[in-house]
Amino acid sequence: MSSVGFIGLGNMGLPMSINLATANDSKMDVIAFDANPTALNLAKEAGMRTASSVEEIGASNCSVIITMLPGCQAVDAVTPMLLESCDPNASTLFVDCSTVHPSTSRRWNEELKEKGHTRMDAPVSGGVKGATDGTLTFMVGCDDPATLQHAQPLLDIMGQRSIHCGTAGAGSATKLCNNLALAAQMLGICEAMNLGESLGVDPIVLAQVMNTSTAKSWSCEVNNPHPVVATDRGTGAAANRYEGGFGSKLMQKDLSLAVSAGADAGVALPVGVLSKELYHMATLHGLGDKDFGVMLQFLRGQKP
Amino acid sequence: MSSVGFIGLGNMGLPMSINLATANDSKMDVIAFDANPTALNLAKEAGMRTASSVEEIGASNCSVIITMLPGCQAVDAVTPMLLESCDPNASTLFVDCSTVHPSTSRRWNEELKEKGHTRMDAPVSGGVKGATDGTLTFMVGCDDPATLQHAQPLLDIMGQRSIHCGTAGAGSATKLCNNLALAAQMLGICEAMNLGESLGVDPIVLAQVMNTSTAKSWSCEVNNPHPVVATDRGTGAAANRYEGGFGSKLMQKDLSLAVSAGADAGVALPVGVLSKELYHMATLHGLGDKDFGVMLQFLRGQKP
Amino acid sequence: MSSVGFIGLGNMGLPMSINLATANDSKMDVIAFDANPTALNLAKEAGMRTASSVEEIGASNCSVIITMLPGCQAVDAVTPMLLESCDPNASTLFVDCSTVHPSTSRRWNEELKEKGHTRMDAPVSGGVKGATDGTLTFMVGCDDPATLQHAQPLLDIMGQRSIHCGTAGAGSATKLCNNLALAAQMLGICEAMNLGESLGVDPIVLAQVMNTSTAKSWSCEVNNPHPVVATDRGTGAAANRYEGGFGSKLMQKDLSLAVSAGADAGVALPVGVLSKELYHMATLHGLGDKDFGVMLQFLRGQKP
Amino acid sequence: MSSVGFIGLGNMGLPMSINLATANDSKMDVIAFDANPTALNLAKEAGMRTASSVEEIGASNCSVIITMLPGCQAVDAVTPMLLESCDPNASTLFVDCSTVHPSTSRRWNEELKEKGHTRMDAPVSGGVKGATDGTLTFMVGCDDPATLQHAQPLLDIMGQRSIHCGTAGAGSATKLCNNLALAAQMLGICEAMNLGESLGVDPIVLAQVMNTSTAKSWSCEVNNPHPVVATDRGTGAAANRYEGGFGSKLMQKDLSLAVSAGADAGVALPVGVLSKELYHMATLHGLGDKDFGVMLQFLRGQKP
Repeated sequence: MSSVGFIGLGNMGLPMSINLATANDSKMDVIAFDANPTALNLAKEAGMRTASSVEEIGASNCSVIITMLPGCQAVDAVTPMLLESCDPNASTLFVDCSTVHPSTSRRWNEELKEKGHTRMDAPVSGGVKGATDGTLTFMVGCDDPATLQHAQPLLDIMGQRSIHCGTAGAGSATKLCNNLALAAQMLGICEAMNLGESLGVDPIVLAQVMNTSTAKSWSCEVNNPHPVVATDRGTGAAANRYEGGFGSKLMQKDLSLAVSAGADAGVALPVGVLSKELYHMATLHGLGDKDFGVMLQFLRGQKP
Repeated sequence: MSSVGFIGLGNMGLPMSINLATANDSKMDVIAFDANPTALNLAKEAGMRTASSVEEIGASNCSVIITMLPGCQAVDAVTPMLLESCDPNASTLFVDCSTVHPSTSRRWNEELKEKGHTRMDAPVSGGVKGATDGTLTFMVGCDDPATLQHAQPLLDIMGQRSIHCGTAGAGSATKLCNNLALAAQMLGICEAMNLGESLGVDPIVLAQVMNTSTAKSWSCEVNNPHPVVATDRGTGAAANRYEGGFGSKLMQKDLSLAVSAGADAGVALPVGVLSKELYHMATLHGLGDKDFGVMLQFLRGQKP
Repeated sequence: MSSVGFIGLGNMGLPMSINLATANDSKMDVIAFDANPTALNLAKEAGMRTASSVEEIGASNCSVIITMLPGCQAVDAVTPMLLESCDPNASTLFVDCSTVHPSTSRRWNEELKEKGHTRMDAPVSGGVKGATDGTLTFMVGCDDPATLQHAQPLLDIMGQRSIHCGTAGAGSATKLCNNLALAAQMLGICEAMNLGESLGVDPIVLAQVMNTSTAKSWSCEVNNPHPVVATDRGTGAAANRYEGGFGSKLMQKDLSLAVSAGADAGVALPVGVLSKELYHMATLHGLGDKDFGVMLQFLRGQKP
Repeated sequence: MSSVGFIGLGNMGLPMSINLATANDSKMDVIAFDANPTALNLAKEAGMRTASSVEEIGASNCSVIITMLPGCQAVDAVTPMLLESCDPNASTLFVDCSTVHPSTSRRWNEELKEKGHTRMDAPVSGGVKGATDGTLTFMVGCDDPATLQHAQPLLDIMGQRSIHCGTAGAGSATKLCNNLALAAQMLGICEAMNLGESLGVDPIVLAQVMNTSTAKSWSCEVNNPHPVVATDRGTGAAANRYEGGFGSKLMQKDLSLAVSAGADAGVALPVGVLSKELYHMATLHGLGDKDFGVMLQFLRGQKP
């Protein structure tokens, strides 16, 4: 495999690219770009080559170009630059790990296919920790399963599991569906923890009961939003004043994509839209950078 | 231990009482009452003595009287009859397994204590299957942990776990909190399954991804509301046209209690109240007896 | 007409009782009580006799006793005191202007009727201004229209209109229905004003268009929640930093009653319950004493 | 003024164009197009010239071209055809009466301006009746007030009022804001009417009280969703089994645009999004063509 391009060195992209460049003495040739010079320096320190523009990545004859960008707008800005700078006969594989609208994935899939390239949407779950540890899950959408096989060695370095969810856009869709369900679960746990504590139930006992009952869920077990429970269990951003987890603002963004996809697809999402507005309100009240479990405090009218 | 009284032989109470009367050749002397003669006959066939009124149970010198009633109104009707017919010097233990408002539990706890009795709220999770198999979980609220120890042998016959959640009312509160969180989780899964399928993701794949990701939950794994997924996994009422599970009407009832308790306690429950109204609407549209996963169909405007 | 008792001298009750005692040189003999000595002094200064307890009012041989209390709990506390202290042969007319649950009205109606008295629920609309100016509207529930005729002279002093809404409880119900609809209207106007302004529409123009279109409503015209519009129109609490209007906390209280009545009556109220939770959240965030138009600011994450 | 082009002869566009062609013996030369031949025939019968394509309208040297199309997609399809077929030196005035996303209006405004044309968004309120009677209100967005003056004679034939709401897009925004507030108002009235009737209040009395109180609104007065009230008042689609009014599906469409604009503008719309989902659900349950007051019946689980 020849060089791999990597564009987008944020909280997720940087550790992912570092794993690519260093894991198992892979000696993989990674050429990276980000508009942020600090991130670019960190990539260089980790042994990557760095580019000074998106177009330089496009012109570098990479067999695979991975993008990890903050949303649809960035993907819509970067992809045309790549298309113009890429060798049209090279049949590059584009792996877009950004969380975007399924229609964005499908649109670029068509356009790239027309130009002779292949593409997959491969958004991830696992957070910064999974990106750092190389334990991400990739939700893959691509028309031909062979495309996934082609990318598998790279995905296996950055993660521990890749699931073919369907044709182009299905990876994006799956990611949004998961986070839609996740938001409802977190909100339900926040409300239940608040209610229980107000009614005199010890939060640790309440979480313990729910974790062995029908309300068992990641939001109760691993990322319980109650500080006392999180501290007791030793896991979850609530133990750390909601620093360092999955931000409310990011949850709002994913919910916006899900709700928009739902409107396009004609699917009623009453709890989803309310979840989105609640995270929107929390963001407007200054909590956008706090882990999405901070909703427990927002619903109480308290600062975290 | 002398005789045990059992009042309320519905879908849950009958198998619970049968387990008491028959499990492990317990030869426990159970005297049962229900206003429904069919249920009473089934109790007799299972070897119980039967009473012709609540008061007859009260007058039977039972050391423990278990109630499994449909709600606060029934508890408020039955408990005074028991109080009047019970020997005031007998110090009977009242075990109320009904799902009621925590304030109902606290109120009767005070009144029974004043009359020299003891009491615990011990609502259950596990459904009809758990009641039949003797694998229920009891969420216990009682002021003195010794009260739970006293009842433990009986609870161990009917269930496999009893958790002391706090003082009187804490068992009721814990049950409501669990179901509040559960409703949000189920609704989130229903919306996610509907959205994913409309966006072209195979429901079985979508459920598989969520079950290994942050949306993992009982409502996705064990009681997935999508018929195709439920059939594939071999578990959940959706495989059986939503027959035989936890009815939408019962979920609505529990949510009403949770929301009312939240209003009393001054706790904001935005997702909880919306969940309650959605189950209310489903019930008004004729789906009250269907498993609460039927929300997936209601949101589609389809009959199950 | 002999003496009139008046219990509850709050923001509403005090000006109402003052009107009774002074309007048109009525020389009506009003005997008043409130637990707050300051309010009681103001009543005395306005020419009323004052009592030192509820029971003293009950024992004063009033032909009519008016109550204006903060809610169901207060009514449930005060009414038995009146019942015990009243002459059982006097056939007193009880006029309850408090906003309470319809079932509270019906319950006390039955009990008072059994004791030979008559009663009406007569909650008001019009706010402190209407109470002061004597321009309130009374929404009356009483089993016999003659009861309203009997009270009419008194109501005509305190207000300008009395509507017989139906039997006992119908006055309470009508008041709750109006405020349920009002909350939805205010929230809709708040969201529309926020949206329009963010999209570059001048708030004054936007309000002007809505006031002559299908969104025309009291919340847009008379109590527009946008400070610029309220100042321009010269009406509404928003012009005065949301001081002095109908408090968010009071709206929350009325919505709680409406939602509880809806649950009892089996009526789905999805927008009503969400409205209640939003006002609940605003109250928890410290805005309970601000006019309910403050929701415009709360939704922006801004302090008024 | 030379010829006027008119594209889109639906329930609204046809009577609007007929008024243009016939009102006051205007003898205005109107050239019309619609893909539906029946509509086109009706236009011809009313004295208009008809075109066989959008491009034919574009090539007809009209000084003004009016579009009344079902939404953004149609506007995005038709406008480029007009742009290509229009004389680039003619400086045509485009009047778009369609209800679209404000960003759609702004985008086309920029593009048309670049090509030397002028444009205004001028969505309407008043419904089919207003279109037929020529009593519509136009909510106008255009960068230069002179543009409105230019179109005023035409708007005055089709309507009775034109309000300059701001720059391009402000007309679209104002329309969406009005309907966002309207939906909340209608839902509030539906819930209040259902609650009141269930609590024993006569619907006619309830509506009468609200119409003279703080819940006074067009949805209560003019389009009351209760059949008994609508019949009694002699106005509103509810009197006619919800036939012939503003369809739930159209309300859902407008709410979708409002919610999408809110997401773009960063405005929280909790009641707006819930309203949208409720109308979406009603549509999925087969009520999309019924007047949006049909929500009263949908919330009851009843067919209209």
